[in-house]
Amino acid sequence: MSSDRYIVSAPGKVILFGEHAVVYGKTAIAGSLDGLRTYAFFEKRIDGYVELNLPDLGLQRAFLWPASALPYNLVNNVDIKEPQNLNFNDVLLHKIKSIALEGQDNQQINNFQQIAAFTFLYLYTCLEYNSQTSCGMTIYVRSNIPVGAGLGSSASYSVCLATGLLLAFGHILSPYESNEQGIKKSSELINLWAYQAEKVIHGTPSGVDNSVATYGGAIMFVNGVIQNMMGTRSLRFLLTNTKVPRNTKILIENVRTRIENVKGFPKITNLILDAIHDISESFKEILGSEIMDDQELYTKTEGLIDMCHHLLNSLGVGHPSLDKVREIAAQCDLHTKLTGAGGGGCALTLIRNDVSKEQIEIVKTALTASPHCFECYETSIGGHGVGVLDASSDKSLQEFSECEKNQLAGIIGWMYFA
Amino acid sequence: MSSDRYIVSAPGKVILFGEHAVVYGKTAIAGSLDGLRTYAFFEKRIDGYVELNLPDLGLQRAFLWPASALPYNLVNNVDIKEPQNLNFNDVLLHKIKSIALEGQDNQQINNFQQIAAFTFLYLYTCLEYNSQTSCGMTIYVRSNIPVGAGLGSSASYSVCLATGLLLAFGHILSPYESNEQGIKKSSELINLWAYQAEKVIHGTPSGVDNSVATYGGAIMFVNGVIQNMMGTRSLRFLLTNTKVPRNTKILIENVRTRIENVKGFPKITNLILDAIHDISESFKEILGSEIMDDQELYTKTEGLIDMCHHLLNSLGVGHPSLDKVREIAAQCDLHTKLTGAGGGGCALTLIRNDVSKEQIEIVKTALTASPHCFECYETSIGGHGVGVLDASSDKSLQEFSECEKNQLAGIIGWMYFA
Repeated sequence: MSSDRYIVSAPGKVILFGEHAVVYGKTAIAGSLDGLRTYAFFEKRIDGYVELNLPDLGLQRAFLWPASALPYNLVNNVDIKEPQNLNFNDVLLHKIKSIALEGQDNQQINNFQQIAAFTFLYLYTCLEYNSQTSCGMTIYVRSNIPVGAGLGSSASYSVCLATGLLLAFGHILSPYESNEQGIKKSSELINLWAYQAEKVIHGTPSGVDNSVATYGGAIMFVNGVIQNMMGTRSLRFLLTNTKVPRNTKILIENVRTRIENVKGFPKITNLILDAIHDISESFKEILGSEIMDDQELYTKTEGLIDMCHHLLNSLGVGHPSLDKVREIAAQCDLHTKLTGAGGGGCALTLIRNDVSKEQIEIVKTALTASPHCFECYETSIGGHGVGVLDASSDKSLQEFSECEKNQLAGIIGWMYFA
Repeated sequence: MSSDRYIVSAPGKVILFGEHAVVYGKTAIAGSLDGLRTYAFFEKRIDGYVELNLPDLGLQRAFLWPASALPYNLVNNVDIKEPQNLNFNDVLLHKIKSIALEGQDNQQINNFQQIAAFTFLYLYTCLEYNSQTSCGMTIYVRSNIPVGAGLGSSASYSVCLATGLLLAFGHILSPYESNEQGIKKSSELINLWAYQAEKVIHGTPSGVDNSVATYGGAIMFVNGVIQNMMGTRSLRFLLTNTKVPRNTKILIENVRTRIENVKGFPKITNLILDAIHDISESFKEILGSEIMDDQELYTKTEGLIDMCHHLLNSLGVGHPSLDKVREIAAQCDLHTKLTGAGGGGCALTLIRNDVSKEQIEIVKTALTASPHCFECYETSIGGHGVGVLDASSDKSLQEFSECEKNQLAGIIGWMYFA
């Protein structure tokens, strides 16, 4: 495998149960989204420029920065193995933000593009510091994860950047060149750096999204502790993006008001959060049961999905568009809940194992043909985490940039860290 | 006031908060429905026939029974003042059922009409027993309360029958002829006999419906104990009948399965019931608060309405038609919950005091013009209980039967027991 080129990929995530309640120490369960992933191509160059292409964020032309302009002088004594000890350096972030937008040739840069640039430059600066090779790099990022829809697109991006840069700067080896123990250590380091990137993006992220994007599968999150869920059965879902934009911070604040303000009915709200907690715990038991047959697994999961959706509605984080998805899917006897912050965003519809391809098509058509123009993705929960693709061909950049993003997963040869 | 004719009237009821949870000892709050009432005309006759007219139950011709056919011999030692000591006599009920349908000239009698006839004959037989006057009676019942929609139409009917028959057979005096103490005793007796009638109809009724139909106002129901709610502020509502029929027994059974069957998530369900209980208790506090301004009263009540609706949905007693009513009312920023058993039936939309007549008309038009053909009633909670109208005019039966039922409330001269 060439050490000058890397193609990496990491999945999006979806919250199955426990959204909002997780903020108050309740159990939440999240899983990786099979088929909804970010892909990133990294190729070293020799002209001293760093080029970042973000076509799926609508960036017309690539960001292009001279590598020499990066503020390595503001990065002191980075221990690559222990990024969790890095203090966030306002001066560094401030400098990076000014560099990111400098000389962008008056290109209109929207908020998502700006954040993507800051995050990239932050990781690049930290990870190239101490590195022997500083001749620049071309990065090309593709993603079929809807942005701002609560599906962990930023964490998936962060994991891809951390992986590609750690590989390119020689801090980790690819799974092709590594044993099981080495792969495990590498994935831990990827996750730690991705978490640093998530902090640039979100301030105080929970760590759920980057963990799922790194390790794949399904995880349980309780009081800040992330546990992989063993014995997970794979479940198929239809993921529907209502495309209704929402503000996660405001939604979380509104729930907090209900709990902390005496006028907001704290007692009632706490009982609702307890009920949501018990839904997550019940789902964990269901998934962990080795004797439960499929019929019971699906019927119980459907019951939990319905209850959880209505309880989230009772916290005020619902939206008519989400109820519309439920209504349409219910016409085919499928059960749906909102996922993530609510107030728009995405809905998750369980597809039982006895649902035929034709039935799924009927639901998808009904959803996409509705006046709301919902977008639908068939997915399953619990796929691979971050992976690397052999990129030794000289044509790989061209192939990567021209390939339909949904076809990248189909290319044979991916090796996974998890 | 003539002692040969009586016109009586009693209101329907609506559950504001606590439906379903009340079955498990949680607090429920119900109120009388202003403007949705049953009216009944009673006139003694001398030909020995008992005639029951139920035009609003779709009965084409009156029931007509010879008074001499009634099974007085099966009624033993009725203490009119203590009907609660009456044991239900299967032989009596069986006999009444056979008499009720005898000789009805092959008229098709539906289930509602049959039950109305049984209940009437049961009360008539019990209350005429010991009476000096047995020459027959004409009864004409009108009602604008939708039947089978959870609005207490049967209790309202039972209270009217009990009141009219107690008056006609001289067991109580009308409020025109009575002092405060006498009126209070009369209303207690009416309520007790109406409860007996409700037992004929429902088996084991809670007693909420007949209490509200007798006393009006709003009541709180906790563990079988009914308390009048003092300091009640009157609240305006739009009551929407989805006209979706539902089976209350099955809905209640479904909730029971969730609690009693280990597969039904009893822990989660109990938390939801606790939350519904706290909603009722919070509403009680709000109504009882003397310092809360209208703005806060309405905002808080709207919050409780939303939470309660979603929690009832999470118990599985919702229905798409009820959510449709919510959706339409929400377009005018009004808040709605299902009321009663759910699964169809009625929805209750709070009308804040700052909502104009025009705005209400817009919502009503949107609801009635929707493809679901909902029926809407403007009402307020907490009106009068059972009342009597001076019926001394010889033309009163004709006037009563020909009067538009919605105009009966407007006739001046009603005197109320409560």
